[in-house]
Amino acid sequence: MTEEKLDLKALSLKGMRDFLPQEKRKRDKTVQTLRETFELYGFEPLETPATERLEVLSNKFAGGEEILKEIYTFCDQGKRKLGLRYDLTVPLCRVIAENPRLPMPFKRYQIAPVWRDGPTKTGRYREFTQCDFDIIGAKETADVEILLLTLKAFEKLGLDVIIRLNNRKLLTGIMDDCKISSDKQPTAMLSLDKLLKIGKAGVEKELLEKGSSKEATTKFLEKTSDKTRLNDLEISSEEGKEGLRELKELFTLLPKTSKIVFDASLSRGLNYYTGMVFEAYLADQSKVSSSLAAGGRYDNLIGAFLGSKEQVPATGGSFGLDVITEALNETTQESNTQVFVIPIKDVKEGLKIAEEFRKQGISASCDLNGKKLGKNLEYAAKISVPFAAIIGEKELKENKVTLRDMKTGKQEELSVKDAVKKIL
Amino acid sequence: MTEEKLDLKALSLKGMRDFLPQEKRKRDKTVQTLRETFELYGFEPLETPATERLEVLSNKFAGGEEILKEIYTFCDQGKRKLGLRYDLTVPLCRVIAENPRLPMPFKRYQIAPVWRDGPTKTGRYREFTQCDFDIIGAKETADVEILLLTLKAFEKLGLDVIIRLNNRKLLTGIMDDCKISSDKQPTAMLSLDKLLKIGKAGVEKELLEKGSSKEATTKFLEKTSDKTRLNDLEISSEEGKEGLRELKELFTLLPKTSKIVFDASLSRGLNYYTGMVFEAYLADQSKVSSSLAAGGRYDNLIGAFLGSKEQVPATGGSFGLDVITEALNETTQESNTQVFVIPIKDVKEGLKIAEEFRKQGISASCDLNGKKLGKNLEYAAKISVPFAAIIGEKELKENKVTLRDMKTGKQEELSVKDAVKKIL
Repeated sequence: MTEEKLDLKALSLKGMRDFLPQEKRKRDKTVQTLRETFELYGFEPLETPATERLEVLSNKFAGGEEILKEIYTFCDQGKRKLGLRYDLTVPLCRVIAENPRLPMPFKRYQIAPVWRDGPTKTGRYREFTQCDFDIIGAKETADVEILLLTLKAFEKLGLDVIIRLNNRKLLTGIMDDCKISSDKQPTAMLSLDKLLKIGKAGVEKELLEKGSSKEATTKFLEKTSDKTRLNDLEISSEEGKEGLRELKELFTLLPKTSKIVFDASLSRGLNYYTGMVFEAYLADQSKVSSSLAAGGRYDNLIGAFLGSKEQVPATGGSFGLDVITEALNETTQESNTQVFVIPIKDVKEGLKIAEEFRKQGISASCDLNGKKLGKNLEYAAKISVPFAAIIGEKELKENKVTLRDMKTGKQEELSVKDAVKKIL
Repeated sequence: MTEEKLDLKALSLKGMRDFLPQEKRKRDKTVQTLRETFELYGFEPLETPATERLEVLSNKFAGGEEILKEIYTFCDQGKRKLGLRYDLTVPLCRVIAENPRLPMPFKRYQIAPVWRDGPTKTGRYREFTQCDFDIIGAKETADVEILLLTLKAFEKLGLDVIIRLNNRKLLTGIMDDCKISSDKQPTAMLSLDKLLKIGKAGVEKELLEKGSSKEATTKFLEKTSDKTRLNDLEISSEEGKEGLRELKELFTLLPKTSKIVFDASLSRGLNYYTGMVFEAYLADQSKVSSSLAAGGRYDNLIGAFLGSKEQVPATGGSFGLDVITEALNETTQESNTQVFVIPIKDVKEGLKIAEEFRKQGISASCDLNGKKLGKNLEYAAKISVPFAAIIGEKELKENKVTLRDMKTGKQEELSVKDAVKKIL
């Protein structure tokens, strides 16, 4: 046990955050909107523990070498090696493995923190919340639902977004046609993934450095340029043709909207995607340039994870809570508390009136320390409560309160019943 | 990276749980009720990271020796010693320490998992969710709000509870009067805390074994018996008198209810309580015998934690999510999803009708794999959705659906609009 006095200046941890009420309220609101959207689309909630066996997290079909270095690792009393989860997909795979009788398709959402012990550059945290939704055991048609849900969530959040859509099979087909060899394709996709960040010239440089020929590189960049239209694309590889067919089918199933656009250059960094891939961005990227949601189809991951030869088709997406909160950029949100009750003479009267408000469903707080009116109004302003209800001797006699609008300073003498109406 | 095939039988961890949709929905419902109650009483949400510096968790004013052994401990890349939090009180103390300008009183709630690497006997888990609510910076009057909130939460949950109430100062006063010396008082309280479990004879035996005299023990058990009435109690010690006065005042401020009763034997195990203590139990203890919520006043903890001489008065409580879920013992809850759409011919039609339902605010899922009607109805039953909407050729022509009540099997041909009405 530490006997020394704590150094109050070094209590918190790098890359970890507290969310004080004002920030937490904003996040809770976003989470609530996402939850409602998930449920509207028939996704069911799942909760898994924060820790997983290290052998599950480090399975070769899971997150890959890079992420392994970032796992917080430890042992329990039984000397089992554990780690904090770095995503919600691996726990989902484990749940599927352990519950073979789950009705399929299994549509689940999970909103929960994950941990990565990585560098803490701007915007990177060691604990952050993922909002995942996935459909396990359903074929390409399910991709429509993933995209519809994503659109609906942003509509509900009030954010104007563009969804960029592509297909990994198509991209592989394009690379095949450009004579980029299979072994170079994963790194070529990683380079292409940086197009928005480093530009066409940057990607070209990387591709050449990684050993693609000048001809292949030029052809590849041309075929994946923003001028590429889905209906003009000509692909000779079988896999590419299948990807093209899947994408065209997807656009037929989707409602006509300018919010979903084909982007031949979209690849998504992760290796495990096998079909549709998407990323959602603010239409006005000057505000926030990173993607607010992303996902895709990963038909091989779960089967490989289970060590089974059978494919378990899967598709899904994930919303970024931090970046969405940043994009919403809401001005100071008022408190959840709707009224602060200030008794002038007797704390007991304050408690009573606060209870009356609560019985009417009004969220109420009241002075508990018998402070003076001025101090109490100061406090009410600090906690951003929209109304104060003052109870002086006169009000007490008349069974009324003086309701003060904290923004305008306007005051009215009202019965609690009328005050409730005013607050609502 | 682990290359071996995973042992599918040993994937999950002892003392850790997955909550599949059916269980998770029940928990979410309870959490939502608690959250609404916290906010009704003007408590604001707080989120803190799962990990804390080990020196914070192991501060001598924090959880104590016993809990130290149960901390999951590890290092981050910067070689800082970390641990998973074992409660939500220590993180709250740290937040208070780091944010000296927080408006006081600070009323916060936090619903989040905590971790203890302890023995996993029945009902003990290594990850479990705490639902804490505390008022920092307010004197005894605030205790009323803690109790009112607790009552309201159980009323909303539909659970009939009895709250046992006592005061640590009073209990100390009684022990002083019984000539139980200060050094023996903490263990005497721990023994008394077991009264419900081991009975009066058991407590007597423990007290004698721990070195209390026969006379002191008899007197102590008599004074803390269930026959002790608040108004009959005679206390000579100053601290005891203060406790008695506080308790009487508390009962004056509380509404008249048989749901809150004085219990002179209630002590609560934890050392840090300084005034009011309470525990809530089901009125019918044959169902669940452990406490569903508990808490008390702890005026010295935060000041001591900060290493400051100034007292920071604090009071609060905590709801046990597991035990409340057990007490609610709800029968299988239906899915959040309200209707499952089954297209007979064309998956595309199913997607379209599902979207129509969603536009009306109805949570809908639909067949994504083009399965046969029988298989689809089987699936709808398995996921406990209350209605299925079948779209055959006839329905398609007439722009209708056949709505099937999954419980009764009754079917009706309706327009989507009428189906929405029926579902609601």
